[in-house]
Amino acid sequence: MTTQHIQLTEHGRLKHFLSIEGLSKELLTEILDTSESYADMSGKQIKKVPLLRGKTIINLFFENSTRTRTTFELAAARLSADVITMNIATSSTAKGESLLDTIRNLEAMHVDMFIVRHALSGAAYFIAEHAAPHISVINAGDGQHAHPTQAMLDMFTIRQYKKRFEGLKVAIVGDILHSRVARSQIQALNTLGVEEVRVIAPKTLLPNQVRQMGVIDFHDMEEGLSGVDVIIMLRLQKERMNSAFLPSESEYFRCFGLTEAKLKHAKPDVMVMHPGPINRGVEIASTVADGPHSVILQQVSNGVAVRMAIMSMIISSSGGGA
Amino acid sequence: MTTQHIQLTEHGRLKHFLSIEGLSKELLTEILDTSESYADMSGKQIKKVPLLRGKTIINLFFENSTRTRTTFELAAARLSADVITMNIATSSTAKGESLLDTIRNLEAMHVDMFIVRHALSGAAYFIAEHAAPHISVINAGDGQHAHPTQAMLDMFTIRQYKKRFEGLKVAIVGDILHSRVARSQIQALNTLGVEEVRVIAPKTLLPNQVRQMGVIDFHDMEEGLSGVDVIIMLRLQKERMNSAFLPSESEYFRCFGLTEAKLKHAKPDVMVMHPGPINRGVEIASTVADGPHSVILQQVSNGVAVRMAIMSMIISSSGGGA
Amino acid sequence: MTTQHIQLTEHGRLKHFLSIEGLSKELLTEILDTSESYADMSGKQIKKVPLLRGKTIINLFFENSTRTRTTFELAAARLSADVITMNIATSSTAKGESLLDTIRNLEAMHVDMFIVRHALSGAAYFIAEHAAPHISVINAGDGQHAHPTQAMLDMFTIRQYKKRFEGLKVAIVGDILHSRVARSQIQALNTLGVEEVRVIAPKTLLPNQVRQMGVIDFHDMEEGLSGVDVIIMLRLQKERMNSAFLPSESEYFRCFGLTEAKLKHAKPDVMVMHPGPINRGVEIASTVADGPHSVILQQVSNGVAVRMAIMSMIISSSGGGA
Repeated sequence: MTTQHIQLTEHGRLKHFLSIEGLSKELLTEILDTSESYADMSGKQIKKVPLLRGKTIINLFFENSTRTRTTFELAAARLSADVITMNIATSSTAKGESLLDTIRNLEAMHVDMFIVRHALSGAAYFIAEHAAPHISVINAGDGQHAHPTQAMLDMFTIRQYKKRFEGLKVAIVGDILHSRVARSQIQALNTLGVEEVRVIAPKTLLPNQVRQMGVIDFHDMEEGLSGVDVIIMLRLQKERMNSAFLPSESEYFRCFGLTEAKLKHAKPDVMVMHPGPINRGVEIASTVADGPHSVILQQVSNGVAVRMAIMSMIISSSGGGA
Repeated sequence: MTTQHIQLTEHGRLKHFLSIEGLSKELLTEILDTSESYADMSGKQIKKVPLLRGKTIINLFFENSTRTRTTFELAAARLSADVITMNIATSSTAKGESLLDTIRNLEAMHVDMFIVRHALSGAAYFIAEHAAPHISVINAGDGQHAHPTQAMLDMFTIRQYKKRFEGLKVAIVGDILHSRVARSQIQALNTLGVEEVRVIAPKTLLPNQVRQMGVIDFHDMEEGLSGVDVIIMLRLQKERMNSAFLPSESEYFRCFGLTEAKLKHAKPDVMVMHPGPINRGVEIASTVADGPHSVILQQVSNGVAVRMAIMSMIISSSGGGA
Repeated sequence: MTTQHIQLTEHGRLKHFLSIEGLSKELLTEILDTSESYADMSGKQIKKVPLLRGKTIINLFFENSTRTRTTFELAAARLSADVITMNIATSSTAKGESLLDTIRNLEAMHVDMFIVRHALSGAAYFIAEHAAPHISVINAGDGQHAHPTQAMLDMFTIRQYKKRFEGLKVAIVGDILHSRVARSQIQALNTLGVEEVRVIAPKTLLPNQVRQMGVIDFHDMEEGLSGVDVIIMLRLQKERMNSAFLPSESEYFRCFGLTEAKLKHAKPDVMVMHPGPINRGVEIASTVADGPHSVILQQVSNGVAVRMAIMSMIISSSGGGA
């Protein structure tokens, strides 16, 4: 599925934000630059600008996520938008047709933006394709396809500490096969021009022909972490454990959990990242998660700023700022 | 139950909005006229006025309804009110006394308005009757009694397309017996002076002595739709199917579902309406729901504007505009 | 557990509000004085001040409470703060460590205040102790430990009617053993200098060595109510009935329920209070709850004002008012 055209207006501005795929290095860089000002604002006493006053944003969550939902709610509130959160059980909208009816009804209420999270890959794309022209859609995670705002907050965090993308070696560790986060990160890292993207995982958790994604694959942590600037740990979905992909949590931790010992193979100033919520002692040791290399909480902080930036760029594209 | 007096202030202004019954043609027309300006506003970049700033509105939903709740939340937000939504399981307030305790507690918090939805007929009326003098109540649907804001948005939509009520023939099709929507629509249509209100339904879904409601009853679609200007389809509550009123969904659709073939019996410029959510292939064919005669989504749009109008008229009656 | 130091800034201003314990008479009086202006405001047409504009308050409710949650939401909205309510099942954060991770993530989003309700005693204290320096915590009820905002709204209500604390005799009736409300009330009453605090309960519902709390214990209503100025009834948790502490609801009502007959033993101008929600006919007769001595709904009204006062004092302490 190509999401290149649908994401941009005829003038090349951001209309929807569905996937990193098809977005240019210039546009990704503009998102990072815009995020800077919102990141500065977060520390201020009054964290509020009237940019989206009178705009209506619907948090359309077909899949639960306290953390992502909360950062979007905060981002929208700090831009002065009206936000309504709808938690919709996937069961009641399993058929494409009734999902469309839900969307048609909401857009009839003159809302301006949908933040969509859905267990099916392509759901946000489907909604963007079928929504009325005045509606914008932000993908807050669709199945195993993409989670582009997570990828952009990760890119922002890398640039914040490393000041550049050129020359960086980045390793992503864990369940690459099922991870929408990893897919979006790999696209963003390659677009922004890092030197090397590595994935480290057991073979059962890697896609076939993974190298076509623009990565080098490793099955051994020490080898894969050797000399990297950035380590991105993925959350191990506990439900995968039962599905026979993996022997046990402790066995997984022994092989692919990030410990201080394994960390020594990376560069001395390596950054440790994780999209959260972390499973302590499963994919990451507590000493590493809370240690000096970890920027995990900084990622969360940046999440609000980056989402504010993306929302504000989209509304500006529609000529709609207050 | 007469709701005539309680709905109006001593100066004849709107204090509560509980039922169409007992409201004059002039007052209904004023609601429609006030709604015009809010309908115009919905298309604007900034859809917000400070009319209810500092007012507190409680969405008191004893019965779930995503759509109605959302339009009321949007309407209140666009009037700048503070809105708190409370979903209250009916079980915990089954006794009238504990419902009253809930109301007493909320009014002690100096709220200004309750939007009430309840499975029991008369619940909104009961609350209005017992609430403190400074509180207004809007009925967002009570049992099988009334759903007056739905009726008013339907009237607004009819006037928008037909420019008048005089001379119109309107057919309401479906489960009239259990429908609070139908009851309020019939009252509004008759008050506003349409030429003829027809109801079309199997005999098991019509009240006894239905003609006393000011309608003509039909049991055959072709006959009933003949020459009408407006068709209002009602949602078929699937739970009724089980209660032996109806043989099967497909049998119902064959007899009372609105198809393109049946539509031909109406006037060429007939409007097709439905309060939503629609059951495609049960009471209405998808080709009709999405076809050129359908104004179903326009009804949803108008729902926000009409609810803003009613809220603002009520607050103005209390001398309370900002 | 001493909460004395952590609640105050180095200048002795309110930083957190976790417990009445350790707060001075002067500070409690300042809270009551500040609440006066917010209580006046509640009756106004526009009940809103911009004091907390741009501040983010998280309602962190690990235990459900419609009433307390609603008054905090209203209080925050009327101070113009952005409020996000999170209902978190205790199960998913049973381990202290993962509770901390939740807190760390939320504080990374640059929120300003947590309103915490938790089934475990000490939870709010634990969060305050571990939160980032810019975060304030208000305890909205933790296990059987404390419910200090409830106690302060009760003190405000007593002062409103009695104009003083000196010379007052106050009786608290019911399940003292398990009541966080009673614990906080006893501390507040003693700090503010009432003449006598009595507790009236069956022996099974009194703590061992209850007199060390600064109260006189009674096991008979007539004796305990004799000559008191204020009666505070506690809610009987129905789940306690099953745990063999009590024979039956009707037996409890006969012995410890507040009736008009028992009320006669108190002073003629006695106030009757209850934190709500009341169990009519279990701990209090309806005629008393709705009678001329009852100030139960006034307590609810005052709850919003007192919570606004506490929030605003805390934000001012951080130098953070808008």
